[in-house]
Amino acid sequence: MANDDHFALRPIGVVESKLSKVKDAPCQGTMGEQEAWITIRKEVVEGMKDIKAGDKIIVLTWLHLADRSVLEVYPQDNRNNPLTSVFATRSADRPNPVGLHPVSVLEVSGDKIKVAPLEAIDGTPVIDIKPVI
Amino acid sequence: MANDDHFALRPIGVVESKLSKVKDAPCQGTMGEQEAWITIRKEVVEGMKDIKAGDKIIVLTWLHLADRSVLEVYPQDNRNNPLTSVFATRSADRPNPVGLHPVSVLEVSGDKIKVAPLEAIDGTPVIDIKPVI
Repeated sequence: MANDDHFALRPIGVVESKLSKVKDAPCQGTMGEQEAWITIRKEVVEGMKDIKAGDKIIVLTWLHLADRSVLEVYPQDNRNNPLTSVFATRSADRPNPVGLHPVSVLEVSGDKIKVAPLEAIDGTPVIDIKPVI
Repeated sequence: MANDDHFALRPIGVVESKLSKVKDAPCQGTMGEQEAWITIRKEVVEGMKDIKAGDKIIVLTWLHLADRSVLEVYPQDNRNNPLTSVFATRSADRPNPVGLHPVSVLEVSGDKIKVAPLEAIDGTPVIDIKPVI
C-alpha cells in the first residue's frame, strides 16, 4: 500500500452536512456553529465505540476538492493579504489537503457521530479521529 | 491519484532525529524536549518560505511503522488501562497513522526547519505543516 513516493490513505468515514459548496464553508478563524454527522465505515466502526457525547475530538478530513498544486496563497482568499507560503497558512489548497477540525461530540448513534462546529462540505472524507489532549 | 477507495498521500518532507527506535519516542502526554530537523522536499520547498523561528506550528507526520489493522488498544501500551477503541486514543497504531505534533520553530536554514519538541523517529515522513491558530 506504500512505496517510496506515497502512502494510501483510506477514508474511515464521511461527513454529512448541510453545507454543499466550498464557498459555504467558512475559513478557519471565522468558525460558525455548523452541526454535521460523521458516518464511520463498517470496516473500522469498532474504532469509535468509546467516543461519547461531550467528548472533545479532532476530526481529520481530506479536503478532496482542494488544489494540491498550490504552494502560495492570499490568506482568507483576500488579495489585500500578502501572498503567503501554504505551510504558513490554513489554506485548504496545499499538497496534502488534510483538514484539522476541533469539535465537540453532541450525540452518538450506531455508526454515526454528531459534532459541531464542523465547517466541511457534505461528502468530505474523514481520515482520522483523535481525542483532544 | 485518487479513486473511490483511497487517496495518495505524498510526503512533503522527512524528520531527521536522534530517535531511531519507536520505543524511544515517548507517548503523547509525556512530551520531552527532543529537537529535530524537518527537511522539506524541493518540489514543495516554496511552501515553507514564510515559516520563521519563533512560530508555533503543527507538524503532521505519517507514522510509517504503525500497525494499520489495529482498532482497539491498551492506552500507553499499559494492560492496566482498559482496552479502548483507537479513535478515542492517541495510539500510533490506527487505520491512518497520522501524527499531530504541536511544536515551536527554533531555526530555519535553507530547506530545513529545526523544531522542538518532536517525538518522532528518524526518517518519519512529514505530510503537512500548519500554523497554530
